[in-house]
Amino acid sequence: MKTGRFITLEGGEGSGKSTQGRLLAEALRADGHEVLLTREPGGTPGAEAIRSLLVTGDPDRWTPWSDALLMTAARVDHVARVIRPALERGATVICDRFIDSTRAYQGAGRGLEDAALIDLHNEAVCLWPDLTLVLLLDEAEGLARAAARGGAEARFEAIGGDFHARVQEFFVALPKAEPDRCKAVNAGGSIDDVAVRIRDALC
Amino acid sequence: MKTGRFITLEGGEGSGKSTQGRLLAEALRADGHEVLLTREPGGTPGAEAIRSLLVTGDPDRWTPWSDALLMTAARVDHVARVIRPALERGATVICDRFIDSTRAYQGAGRGLEDAALIDLHNEAVCLWPDLTLVLLLDEAEGLARAAARGGAEARFEAIGGDFHARVQEFFVALPKAEPDRCKAVNAGGSIDDVAVRIRDALC
Repeated sequence: MKTGRFITLEGGEGSGKSTQGRLLAEALRADGHEVLLTREPGGTPGAEAIRSLLVTGDPDRWTPWSDALLMTAARVDHVARVIRPALERGATVICDRFIDSTRAYQGAGRGLEDAALIDLHNEAVCLWPDLTLVLLLDEAEGLARAAARGGAEARFEAIGGDFHARVQEFFVALPKAEPDRCKAVNAGGSIDDVAVRIRDALC
Repeated sequence: MKTGRFITLEGGEGSGKSTQGRLLAEALRADGHEVLLTREPGGTPGAEAIRSLLVTGDPDRWTPWSDALLMTAARVDHVARVIRPALERGATVICDRFIDSTRAYQGAGRGLEDAALIDLHNEAVCLWPDLTLVLLLDEAEGLARAAARGGAEARFEAIGGDFHARVQEFFVALPKAEPDRCKAVNAGGSIDDVAVRIRDALC
């Protein structure tokens, strides 16, 4: 039986999710909680193997549905082997990206129906976060931060057109559409400022 | 628009699908047809990369849903890049395993609901064969043939218990349950005998 709290961090590239995930984990540990900090796609050996197929190569390496199915296959593994066992022993789990990234990137961004992605999640994964923090940053600032970071795992950053605008639009709309689970967090300003906003959002 | 005929070969391990697929392709080519012979999981560079994750490693490397999603991700790629274009130019496509193998192995064999797998296929792949030939062989004879063949890609053969009995039961029931699309072919006897039965089933 699940007893721990499941928190996901969502938002566009460069919105600071990874940094803020680490800071939040440190803060909760300092308060005496057991915390598991993890990320998607990845988090288990199997899911990391799938990740390497997903995040490298040409932008059109996979069709939207192949992307969504690979993401979900990795998520199933991650939930079964890491996330659910941690929640069952009472740990707080913080995950950098989860179902809402699939809805944003493969749904809003690449045209798959949101309802189909939610059905698939309910059938195959069947775990929703207790709280989703959506880090919102001006789209251009986020992409500039991501580009400055660079690296080999740039497949999604490389997709052109209005893809990133549609992804951003989804993340902006999400906390309004699903306020019981999702809270918007202003990701602008200093790292410390954002960390304080995230702690406030947890209360 | 699809104009070619899409034929799939299904059946348990060692039922002779690969050999019979080659013979059928040769026979149809000799009759003047353009034929594309392909197989699953695989058939494209992306799908072959997924195949290598699927068919090697421990039997419990993936949960049933991860298996089904990886298979479907590979199938989406295979259909979009190879099968559908061939059908649209009027070729006959012969595919060694397709959706019914997912229903048999991840559904009947590992407990996922058939209806959920069909929904997923209709959503993500959305292509059904015109004709499915189900090669039926006594289960013990099939596993003995597969074991004699050996090789590195033995993950599914290595699953124990009554897994293979449930898979076999699905394949036996399929032509009775879906007679408009699926025909049973007795896969016992010589290679030539089976090839004649397959040609007869095509008429």
